[in-house]
Amino acid sequence: MSLTIDHQTFAGNGVLITGGLGFIGSNLARRLVTLGARVSILDSLLPDYGGNLFNIEGIEDVVRVNISDVRDSHSLQYLVQDQLYLFNLAGQTSHMDSMADPLTDLEINCRAQLSILETCRKVNPTIKVVFASTRQMYGKPDYLPVDEGHLLRPVDVNGINKMAGEWYHILYNNVFDIPGCALRLTNTYGPRMRVKDARQTFLGIWIRLLLEGRPFDVWDGPQRRDFTYIDDAVDAILLAAASSQANGQIFNLGGDCVITLRELAELLVEVNGGGEFTVRVYPSDRKRIDIGDYYADFSRIRSTLGWEPRIALRDGLKRCLEFYREHLPHYV
Amino acid sequence: MSLTIDHQTFAGNGVLITGGLGFIGSNLARRLVTLGARVSILDSLLPDYGGNLFNIEGIEDVVRVNISDVRDSHSLQYLVQDQLYLFNLAGQTSHMDSMADPLTDLEINCRAQLSILETCRKVNPTIKVVFASTRQMYGKPDYLPVDEGHLLRPVDVNGINKMAGEWYHILYNNVFDIPGCALRLTNTYGPRMRVKDARQTFLGIWIRLLLEGRPFDVWDGPQRRDFTYIDDAVDAILLAAASSQANGQIFNLGGDCVITLRELAELLVEVNGGGEFTVRVYPSDRKRIDIGDYYADFSRIRSTLGWEPRIALRDGLKRCLEFYREHLPHYV
Repeated sequence: MSLTIDHQTFAGNGVLITGGLGFIGSNLARRLVTLGARVSILDSLLPDYGGNLFNIEGIEDVVRVNISDVRDSHSLQYLVQDQLYLFNLAGQTSHMDSMADPLTDLEINCRAQLSILETCRKVNPTIKVVFASTRQMYGKPDYLPVDEGHLLRPVDVNGINKMAGEWYHILYNNVFDIPGCALRLTNTYGPRMRVKDARQTFLGIWIRLLLEGRPFDVWDGPQRRDFTYIDDAVDAILLAAASSQANGQIFNLGGDCVITLRELAELLVEVNGGGEFTVRVYPSDRKRIDIGDYYADFSRIRSTLGWEPRIALRDGLKRCLEFYREHLPHYV
Repeated sequence: MSLTIDHQTFAGNGVLITGGLGFIGSNLARRLVTLGARVSILDSLLPDYGGNLFNIEGIEDVVRVNISDVRDSHSLQYLVQDQLYLFNLAGQTSHMDSMADPLTDLEINCRAQLSILETCRKVNPTIKVVFASTRQMYGKPDYLPVDEGHLLRPVDVNGINKMAGEWYHILYNNVFDIPGCALRLTNTYGPRMRVKDARQTFLGIWIRLLLEGRPFDVWDGPQRRDFTYIDDAVDAILLAAASSQANGQIFNLGGDCVITLRELAELLVEVNGGGEFTVRVYPSDRKRIDIGDYYADFSRIRSTLGWEPRIALRDGLKRCLEFYREHLPHYV
């Protein structure tokens, strides 16, 4: 299939990426630099989150970095002006944190999102906004694969707040004509994800421990998941930004295959050429918010924008391991 | 059908009603007093909202009234202690206000709700919570009548925030065992509703103008709606509180019939024995958030709790007119 991002769409144009020092934001920033965009990054660099200055190593001289928080509406007003695209990726992503400190999750994932959109409405109502949403809000699926017509039944505070954040974007598109859309990401992985701990994804800590020659823990269970390689996720984000057909739409992303955590661990060890893991009983504090099997039906974005995953899981894991073999000290 | 609230459930027990001076809250308070409950009321008495001290006329000596705001978490902590039931009815209900001042709507309908539940978790985790939700969050229906399996597609900021508020209650039931449920109310009407203006319901201002001998405006359109008389809504709230089968559940309420606004206006004039209205073109600022026909399938609450509407629309309108004929000066 042909899936090309038209250079003209972004060349010379101003784009703002909230959460731009994080995993997805920084990979997006790097791609946008190659496409000739004038890239501004907003990131809070909160220690427990995904931001890492090393993520923009090599492009630090051609992007504008602004360290501030999406909860700070004053800095936002200045940064949103004169941009053609807003990639709204900043968020609190830890499910466990959202249960321990629900109001902070609300401030970041609800209140700041609404405040960002209000800022757009006031100072830049034609800016195109792409919001990074999450499949987490589907909760325990009624059927598989899960399409966008599936009911939302969030199983943690984070899922509820992200649900609200997503709908603010759709609403501001529908009512105030601020063009916007949302991508419900599933497990995204690749270079520049947080590997220091399991805060962003369990795959992060697996890779760290594997490369440090230590066994990693795998929670036992029949649950199957899908995974999107970061370059595929960036493709989807750019396609959604470039197409007015995406406006007001919500799209699932998905992966090239469906796999249990144990099979994933085995694949990772195989691709690495060695390594050990310990199979553990699923922790009881997570069991209550577990959703069983999940994998996405991504036919809506395929038919509307021509997107589909292009990097096979095996290849993605290989690239990921190569990146961290070289750069691990910057991430631990 | 038999639909009886067991006196033993509430007699001698402490109940807290947020928004208890408002339309639904005060009618609920009055009923709970007759059932022998020890009723505490929390209300902000914000001028543009539904609170009115006259609503508790006659029971003011047997209920405890606390004027404070659900956004004030300190007063909440004190009030939530030692209660068996929390009827969580306080909310910002104006759709137009939520679009003009979305962050205030968020503070009341999202943040305060989460804060209330956090307070319950800390000081009274066995309290049963009934949340007043709204059919507004369904948006424009895909099919009719709308059941609880219908997708949520809110069409205003209020609908998004109420959606989050509702889900916090379901989540705290599921994860923290704080028994809770939500009722998605449709157009509720009856004595003690706000009639000063159209802020709470258009039916309010219709009744005021009718009783003042002035013509009222009816927006023309084919849209059909359902209406719940306040006593029926109170029944549903009490049944949901009394039954552990309701925990974690969401229930639609509905009405005894489906009617266009114009037909409703004609019925109201007929029941009143006279009056005039003017048919107006639907205002363009509301057209964008209009949802077309809506009426509820309420079979879930019927089969689970045995609820169904018992007061026919004609009778409800009659009772309503009688109330305001006597008490209008207290409401304008």
